[in-house]
Amino acid sequence: MEAFYSGKAKNLYKGPQEDQIIIEFKDDLTAMNAQKKGSFLGKGQVNSEISYLIFQELQRKKIKTHLLERKNDIQWLCEKVEIIPLEVVVRNRIAGSLAKKMGLEEGRALPQPLVEFYFKSDELQDPFLSDSQIEALEIEDLAVLEELKAKANAINDVLKDLFLKCGFLLIDFKVEFGRTKSGEVVLADEISPDSCRLWDKETHEKFDKDRFRRDLGQVQEAYLEVLKRLKEVLK
Amino acid sequence: MEAFYSGKAKNLYKGPQEDQIIIEFKDDLTAMNAQKKGSFLGKGQVNSEISYLIFQELQRKKIKTHLLERKNDIQWLCEKVEIIPLEVVVRNRIAGSLAKKMGLEEGRALPQPLVEFYFKSDELQDPFLSDSQIEALEIEDLAVLEELKAKANAINDVLKDLFLKCGFLLIDFKVEFGRTKSGEVVLADEISPDSCRLWDKETHEKFDKDRFRRDLGQVQEAYLEVLKRLKEVLK
Repeated sequence: MEAFYSGKAKNLYKGPQEDQIIIEFKDDLTAMNAQKKGSFLGKGQVNSEISYLIFQELQRKKIKTHLLERKNDIQWLCEKVEIIPLEVVVRNRIAGSLAKKMGLEEGRALPQPLVEFYFKSDELQDPFLSDSQIEALEIEDLAVLEELKAKANAINDVLKDLFLKCGFLLIDFKVEFGRTKSGEVVLADEISPDSCRLWDKETHEKFDKDRFRRDLGQVQEAYLEVLKRLKEVLK
Repeated sequence: MEAFYSGKAKNLYKGPQEDQIIIEFKDDLTAMNAQKKGSFLGKGQVNSEISYLIFQELQRKKIKTHLLERKNDIQWLCEKVEIIPLEVVVRNRIAGSLAKKMGLEEGRALPQPLVEFYFKSDELQDPFLSDSQIEALEIEDLAVLEELKAKANAINDVLKDLFLKCGFLLIDFKVEFGRTKSGEVVLADEISPDSCRLWDKETHEKFDKDRFRRDLGQVQEAYLEVLKRLKEVLK
């Protein structure tokens, strides 16, 4: 079977039904708009497992996702959705691009979670947009943005709690949403150490893609530790 | 008398009273966060004259500003205000940084005016911020941002009309606001071809600082033409 789309970290295949797709987690890691590339053996499997545990937990908490079932170690059967072209970032603490653009130290807690939107475009390097820009550029209307914020905040509530039980601070994360055939907005893509910043709550050691981005080493070990702790908490 | 502050395009002096300052328009031109520098003789005077005509027109339209009186060719007596650390940009058409970050052609009309906020910081290169970021970083609260948007839109309505009578399309402009001693938010700084994009409505020729930024030549001639047309319309 040939992938109809091959992305930075996933391949997409046609599903058994018209309104389904199969997503496959790749071993590839990319950063800085794919200028930096890497991989480790079994990365697709560990991310698929982590993300599966998280999506199941979200579904138990009544948050709808595109996940239908896990097919094997690296493939999910999903509902086919039209991806909303916005990366939705939720921040509990200052880190990454926000720390850099404001010249602030990473780790400072925000008074309340902050939701940001980035326009999904490899060519444009995912530019950060305000709500007013998204509206004026006719990408999505304000009512949709409010819906995305509400869903992103609800996901954050579940994830913060789950990861804290695992001994991690959830610094920030990125999610994507899609519209089903019936027009419902559901969580799509994945949630893994590729898309979250997770710091050990005691030592503040990083257990996420920053280990790869910043050449901190022990990338694989960190991802495996996240999986191990999630399995312990969710068993 | 010595300036207590010397900025990129203006000097500030103490005023005759505690709650007053004198602002002086310099002949300097800067662009790209002051990496590009230039000047022309009489630029301070022409900007002071243009800005004075515009601020008077705004005051006639009941928009409050820091301007008290023009003292001479390059100096204004102003109410002392605490500057709100946000550059407020209003866009009627796509141009400049928005065109660049979205890969869009300059000149495309927006369905409605778009208001943007940039954090005033030379060191950080005036980063673009969303309303949610400004709130989460505790720079200003959302109610203030709504007030700034309303005032910026009211200024846009006056300016668009005024410049159209002069034969110019107002593509976008930047304004700054300040709080008076009583806490009122008023228009501060200046409005001139340094802070507006003005295109001839027929030829789309530029009559603003883009002539300097982009090395298009005839910078002085363009600024003088803006002054000439404003004087004709407002005489």
